[in-house]
Amino acid sequence: MHTLEHLQALAVELIESERYLNEPKSLFEPIDYAMRQGGKRLRPLLVLIAADMFDEDVSKARYAAAAVEILHNFTLLHDDIMDNSPLRRGKPTVYKQFGNNQAILSGDAMFALAMQYGLKTESYAANAIANVLSQASIDVCRGQALDMDFEQRDNVTIEAYIEMVRLKTSVLLGCSLKMGAIIARTEQANIAALSDFGEFIGIAFQIKDDMLDCWSKVEDFGKVKGKDIADKKKTFLYLKALETADGDMRNRLLSLYNDDSAEQNEKISRVIEIYERLNIKSIAQNVVEDYTKRAMESLERVSATEESKKNLIIFANKLLIREK
Amino acid sequence: MHTLEHLQALAVELIESERYLNEPKSLFEPIDYAMRQGGKRLRPLLVLIAADMFDEDVSKARYAAAAVEILHNFTLLHDDIMDNSPLRRGKPTVYKQFGNNQAILSGDAMFALAMQYGLKTESYAANAIANVLSQASIDVCRGQALDMDFEQRDNVTIEAYIEMVRLKTSVLLGCSLKMGAIIARTEQANIAALSDFGEFIGIAFQIKDDMLDCWSKVEDFGKVKGKDIADKKKTFLYLKALETADGDMRNRLLSLYNDDSAEQNEKISRVIEIYERLNIKSIAQNVVEDYTKRAMESLERVSATEESKKNLIIFANKLLIREK
Repeated sequence: MHTLEHLQALAVELIESERYLNEPKSLFEPIDYAMRQGGKRLRPLLVLIAADMFDEDVSKARYAAAAVEILHNFTLLHDDIMDNSPLRRGKPTVYKQFGNNQAILSGDAMFALAMQYGLKTESYAANAIANVLSQASIDVCRGQALDMDFEQRDNVTIEAYIEMVRLKTSVLLGCSLKMGAIIARTEQANIAALSDFGEFIGIAFQIKDDMLDCWSKVEDFGKVKGKDIADKKKTFLYLKALETADGDMRNRLLSLYNDDSAEQNEKISRVIEIYERLNIKSIAQNVVEDYTKRAMESLERVSATEESKKNLIIFANKLLIREK
Repeated sequence: MHTLEHLQALAVELIESERYLNEPKSLFEPIDYAMRQGGKRLRPLLVLIAADMFDEDVSKARYAAAAVEILHNFTLLHDDIMDNSPLRRGKPTVYKQFGNNQAILSGDAMFALAMQYGLKTESYAANAIANVLSQASIDVCRGQALDMDFEQRDNVTIEAYIEMVRLKTSVLLGCSLKMGAIIARTEQANIAALSDFGEFIGIAFQIKDDMLDCWSKVEDFGKVKGKDIADKKKTFLYLKALETADGDMRNRLLSLYNDDSAEQNEKISRVIEIYERLNIKSIAQNVVEDYTKRAMESLERVSATEESKKNLIIFANKLLIREK
């Protein structure tokens, strides 16, 4: 078994050593740009961790690892168009840099490239990998569709929110672990349990992310404090606050959240104040811990040595105990 | 072997009996809408013809046939956004009907669905089918990128134009035949020859289409006469005319074609007049015939009975001798 640091370095190297500069340039330059915007390469890392867990040669997992990162970046690329997001990781998003049409088309080609990479996996697993990738893609689209639907609604339940997060974010983490496990030829029950681990961790991760938007201790979080509030995003915090508040406070929160004329910093402070009055921070923390616990229970179901599970436990802790 | 009419009916039935109404509706309604806009279902038909040619049970080709039609409609859907096309087959395009964001997202999901359908093919062929589909998708994206690049350029060669058409249109016809042949487990040389047939026919088809825009004998062509000219599209006719004309006429054509203030019908008549003076109609007809000949030579290379090749010959004639 390899250390997490080793696998992390491998995941980064795997993605960043690859160039995508094919012809025509107008199609491939945006792809290369998108793939070189950095990031933690968490999904490829998960593919490698899962293969390594069952003592499989991690190089057999390299195509699946590349595939899931290309797929992930394709979804970001199209999401940025739909969400009108000008910046990603401090740089102009692809559609801002190259225009809408090129971004749509290069995203499409990335999806095809992701499938091609996945299909390069050794033949015993290639079919299953392609299936997992395409199924996960449909789920990610379903999640993004729900996310856009929710923007128009004021009656989104926590349950619906969590299902949206599962589809939009978690499924791809589960898919990454699943692919590593498939490549390692482990039994079906292990593959399913690892996929569950990924999905539960993903939900915990997203709610933690929602929390860090309001209560990050670290200055350089990379996002402005309260950005979700400024963007009127329907986060776990907001939806839970609407669910928890009595009629009066509910109305105040609703009108404050949707007030475009309010001074931003003032608005953000007042929303956070309401969250705190309603105890949303500790409710959210409990939900994060609950999903983390479910993830750990899934991991326990995997029939592998305790030693081999260590990397996933460290991975989960890093994601969930972070303060930025 | 089945008759072409039988296979055509089968192809239409295969596509139109399927519904795509899953949850969430905002994702799947546009897909269902796109898949029910009609059309000749040429690509599924080609999959069936190729499988049938080698006496394979055509029902084994049904998933690949559905896959290529979904893939084709996905590319139309995204192309319509990029090209700002309000109508397709007389109905509002998906982005006009459902909005840009839903059209981007539903297109993405269609791509994933196409892969899923392809992968449902029996296991001996599933992997190859997925490979062919994803490779064809990249080629279609390359073709669309070139097409958009050409809009900005006035020095597009005929050779470059034909390569664009090959990628954007022909590859998917070749891919359809290829998949049918793979499913029929015929030898590699036959698969390659059929793929060539599809690509050559596709090029002939597109140039014929360019011609029909100017010289359709039939009133109900479904398109307005000279629409390509009105849209300032860089067709074979326009590029060949620029290549053929002397300096004076070349300048007249350039300024006329790009003149937005000209009265449309007047402009269209004058452009067609220039084409006729330069003999472009018969040059184009020769090129159509040349590519048809190449297609037929490819078909001759296929080791199968003359009888079994009849459907493809009828198919090609229908496409190329049409007057609308």
